[in-house]
Amino acid sequence: MDRRSFLRTSALGGSAVAASSLAAPAYAQGNRTLTMVSTWGRGLAGVHDAAQYCADRITEMSDGQLTVDLKAAGELVGAFEVFDAVTSGQADMYHGVDYYFLGQHPALSFFSQVPFGMTFMEFSNWYYHDGGKELGDNLYSIFGLKSFAAGNTGPQSGGWFSKEINSPEDFQGLRFRMPGQGGQVLGKLGASVQNIPGAEVYQALSSGSIDGTEWIGPWADEKAGFQEIASIYYTAGFHEPGPNLNLNINLDVYEELTPAQQAIIENTARSANIWNMSQFMANNGAALQRLKSGGTQIRQFPEPVWDAFGAASQEVLAEPMGDDIYKETHDSYMASLRKSAEWIRTSESEFRAQRDRVLG
Amino acid sequence: MDRRSFLRTSALGGSAVAASSLAAPAYAQGNRTLTMVSTWGRGLAGVHDAAQYCADRITEMSDGQLTVDLKAAGELVGAFEVFDAVTSGQADMYHGVDYYFLGQHPALSFFSQVPFGMTFMEFSNWYYHDGGKELGDNLYSIFGLKSFAAGNTGPQSGGWFSKEINSPEDFQGLRFRMPGQGGQVLGKLGASVQNIPGAEVYQALSSGSIDGTEWIGPWADEKAGFQEIASIYYTAGFHEPGPNLNLNINLDVYEELTPAQQAIIENTARSANIWNMSQFMANNGAALQRLKSGGTQIRQFPEPVWDAFGAASQEVLAEPMGDDIYKETHDSYMASLRKSAEWIRTSESEFRAQRDRVLG
Repeated sequence: MDRRSFLRTSALGGSAVAASSLAAPAYAQGNRTLTMVSTWGRGLAGVHDAAQYCADRITEMSDGQLTVDLKAAGELVGAFEVFDAVTSGQADMYHGVDYYFLGQHPALSFFSQVPFGMTFMEFSNWYYHDGGKELGDNLYSIFGLKSFAAGNTGPQSGGWFSKEINSPEDFQGLRFRMPGQGGQVLGKLGASVQNIPGAEVYQALSSGSIDGTEWIGPWADEKAGFQEIASIYYTAGFHEPGPNLNLNINLDVYEELTPAQQAIIENTARSANIWNMSQFMANNGAALQRLKSGGTQIRQFPEPVWDAFGAASQEVLAEPMGDDIYKETHDSYMASLRKSAEWIRTSESEFRAQRDRVLG
Repeated sequence: MDRRSFLRTSALGGSAVAASSLAAPAYAQGNRTLTMVSTWGRGLAGVHDAAQYCADRITEMSDGQLTVDLKAAGELVGAFEVFDAVTSGQADMYHGVDYYFLGQHPALSFFSQVPFGMTFMEFSNWYYHDGGKELGDNLYSIFGLKSFAAGNTGPQSGGWFSKEINSPEDFQGLRFRMPGQGGQVLGKLGASVQNIPGAEVYQALSSGSIDGTEWIGPWADEKAGFQEIASIYYTAGFHEPGPNLNLNINLDVYEELTPAQQAIIENTARSANIWNMSQFMANNGAALQRLKSGGTQIRQFPEPVWDAFGAASQEVLAEPMGDDIYKETHDSYMASLRKSAEWIRTSESEFRAQRDRVLG
């Protein structure tokens, strides 16, 4: 794939010239507007906030050199069109979550979320210090993208249902919204799985075109209004224990930035990561209390259902192993997950258990 | 307190002038070197890395406007002298951990660590989204400082001992290194508690001037070499489940920076936060295995010892409540901790338990 073929010249400001004739760094002296598209509708709590946070921090830190213009889903392109928009050069960057784009490459799941996969801390360990980022750089370069981890919802809820899930068979024929490999897992349990952008889920559920949905967690779900149209809420889920959100930039655009501008984008993404995860986590507790008070029935899936999730997840994770990049990424991810999980169990989990026991 | 009295003029570059005669932003047009001192010796894994990371990112993003010159502990001032060095203007900023400075104000413990307190995620929730940062801004302004959360070790180990701790009485007369309110807790159990900078702990333990010590966790402790001179290691501790590291800047220096430069420092700190926490967490698992293989005996404290830690921690936390700032910060911190902990238990802890059960 010739990345240069993606390059647009229309964004070069006053005098548009072919990139190959530019001496690097092409944009060092000029001010520039970068267009960011997004998989998030403007009203979506937390996720749109993460995109806006990234846009604002880049603008602020670059002191006028870069102005990021955020176009929410539907304002320039649709939620599921952002990958094509940025690889083709129609936009400069996108904020979103890459399990929407597994059709491009199955290994993108490891840089967003795999079922029964990593929590926020575990993902950060792998991504920053255990080979994840380097594997991502290789994968995304195939598509002419530079990718950064730039937000995280923390553990996602199991979702909204109109009837209880008492056995794996209750998923048979259920029309349910869940993206990525998690959705493939529910498909193996017999569900009719739909992939619908966040901004359109409320309408789909309220019109009856789906029977249930997952979205994020109590705070974002309450803001979306699902408690108005579904009565049963499962707090823990198998599918997204800590999904990473992606800030992906057209690689040609990125390479023409100065080293300082590139550093600003990289550190904006890292800053967004901790800011956004904690935004969700800080708001979820109070939101869950409000949902309870408002009559939502709170549930946890029974163990046989978790067992079925686990067996189907193993199948789904194994299916793309014929692809070398997928296999290499899978093996690195799983080795890191085992290592992280053991230390967390020995230290933080033991502390947390003792704190609960001693202080109540 | 007149913050202006702290201002030094010697760092203003070519022409030193009184700050009050400068039009803001005073440094917008000139390049400048900022001196960062640190509580960390140059060889200390993870913590010195966090200081260096902050220095390098600020330098890199500001594209020559700011160059941060990091002086490790002992290179300009000693580890425990950095607070005075920055409030007096001898240095521009420091990286460290503020439970070393509870003599300045007891509420500094909430911005570093209190015993049985917050983990990394819980602290991030409080600090960024639940009032913590604003309380910190007020507290630090008394001392002419601007403070940022800029690193975290994750959960710290219980420490190194030459004999097993089987009951709270085993702390009687034990000469043990532990800073902050955690050290005050061990004092209540009868230990003779010492506060020693990290770079000097190995020497103190090997010379026999202390009987045991805590430092950080398997990776940093192994690098420090404690396994050579102590045989028993407790992996979970009550005293530092997720200590926040501080990047504190002389407030006059900070206020004379441009908004873009200020944003660069703030986002550097946030970037350091996630990068540094995951650095510790990614390395601890393998280090613990190496310690085990090398003959270190791994232990957890028995429940009666945790109970004694809990009771003494409650006493220690209550003692400074006569101070209004301490009380206000305490109440905000504890309310946020309860809220965060409940949601984490309902979601991530349930997921983690099911993942362990289903996938082993």
